[in-house]
Amino acid sequence: MTHWIRFRDGAGSIGFGTLDQHSGRVVQHDGTMFDNPRPTDISYAADDLTLLAPCQPSKVIALWNNYYALSQKLDKAPPQHPLFLIKPPMSVIGPHESIRRPKSYQGKIAYEGELGIVIGKTVSGASVEEAEAAIFGYTCVNDVTAIELLQEDPNFAQWCRSKGFDTFTCLGPSIATGFDWRTANVVTTLEGVERQNYPLDDMIFSPAEQVSLLSQDMTLVPGDVIACGTSIGVGSIKDGARVDVSIAGIGTLSNVLAV
Amino acid sequence: MTHWIRFRDGAGSIGFGTLDQHSGRVVQHDGTMFDNPRPTDISYAADDLTLLAPCQPSKVIALWNNYYALSQKLDKAPPQHPLFLIKPPMSVIGPHESIRRPKSYQGKIAYEGELGIVIGKTVSGASVEEAEAAIFGYTCVNDVTAIELLQEDPNFAQWCRSKGFDTFTCLGPSIATGFDWRTANVVTTLEGVERQNYPLDDMIFSPAEQVSLLSQDMTLVPGDVIACGTSIGVGSIKDGARVDVSIAGIGTLSNVLAV
Repeated sequence: MTHWIRFRDGAGSIGFGTLDQHSGRVVQHDGTMFDNPRPTDISYAADDLTLLAPCQPSKVIALWNNYYALSQKLDKAPPQHPLFLIKPPMSVIGPHESIRRPKSYQGKIAYEGELGIVIGKTVSGASVEEAEAAIFGYTCVNDVTAIELLQEDPNFAQWCRSKGFDTFTCLGPSIATGFDWRTANVVTTLEGVERQNYPLDDMIFSPAEQVSLLSQDMTLVPGDVIACGTSIGVGSIKDGARVDVSIAGIGTLSNVLAV
Repeated sequence: MTHWIRFRDGAGSIGFGTLDQHSGRVVQHDGTMFDNPRPTDISYAADDLTLLAPCQPSKVIALWNNYYALSQKLDKAPPQHPLFLIKPPMSVIGPHESIRRPKSYQGKIAYEGELGIVIGKTVSGASVEEAEAAIFGYTCVNDVTAIELLQEDPNFAQWCRSKGFDTFTCLGPSIATGFDWRTANVVTTLEGVERQNYPLDDMIFSPAEQVSLLSQDMTLVPGDVIACGTSIGVGSIKDGARVDVSIAGIGTLSNVLAV
């Protein structure tokens, strides 16, 4: 398993590389993360770097109703095709960046801990096997939602608006390649108290199935992220509170809702 | 009024510039379209160029229920805030490019002729006056929809999926600056037969109001497009049929649904 990160160094330059989770050393790479990255002879202590979102998606595709446990709780049938909305690029932030409350909104803001699929190859109309090969790796996602806007208009569920605000897509800390999602859980804590702990093998559409089916809908390009949907335990974040989304094998994504 | 276009020249290079609609001459510019473009001494006959989509949006924000005539026909109250979905960058095509039927979909495909707002400055939390100043110009949009997918799942309206397919956002032919939307109509023809002809001054949220309110939701960046929503007269396109969206002062956007 390799852990890829993007970072800003002490001089303000942006780079990317691999993180050794035991030693805490980062080996800078050049080229691009998704196409023949080459190690340089520059390395850092991770503690000396500012982590950034590990990729810069052209789009984030966020699924709804993709876990059996949640579909049963909501009493909704499992879908026949992934149900999704699109989150814009400007919604993305990295580890330890603050989630910002929209100035125009005083209502509840919800966390949703999720697995994120990071695309490594351009794919369109992919078979499940081709889709599997197009997955670069996996990251943690906090899919933040201004939940009271969702049903504000009785005629139109405002998925893109309630989830599309700047800073409402937290990604990171790393992208893990060779990660076996079948044996991991998503654990979300709020101010250190566990609120979600659900197994990824409860997913309705597996990652490769998601990539295959979504690639029938639109071309996916390197760096795009699919947020696999959340399961039970979603709740709201008080201003100033910290949300940690942890997936063993990937790491812990930590963000505070700014006061 | 200036008409900005993007194009591919005979040698395959991509450029941008201004089109004189009377002479048909294009003056190539360098720099960027939205920040101090400078005329070069290179010009072309427009007929020798392949027009491309006039901008490359990071996101297309597409409004629903933004005309009084359509809201009355649908018997839906005018919204309090623009209702929108997000279309991904890969959905964009230019004039005369073919709309492609998704391989996975055999149902009806609908046209929607619309005005498109092209953002020229990065804006967030803009007043109506600031929003007006952030509008670079206007273009024509055909907001294509795989209409039978929209309500396929009873629990989730699939706006992003039904409108997000590759080639489902036709833009062009030009971006007109200094365009007075208040006095123009959107005219959509299908195989030369008029199907839509509605006045832009029937809009619920004016362009500057849209930009102001949407900029409360997310940062808008140069090249982003807001599709202002459509009015009455939407219909479906047979395979092989041509749709023309015309707005006097901007031009005619013509696209065929490929057989």
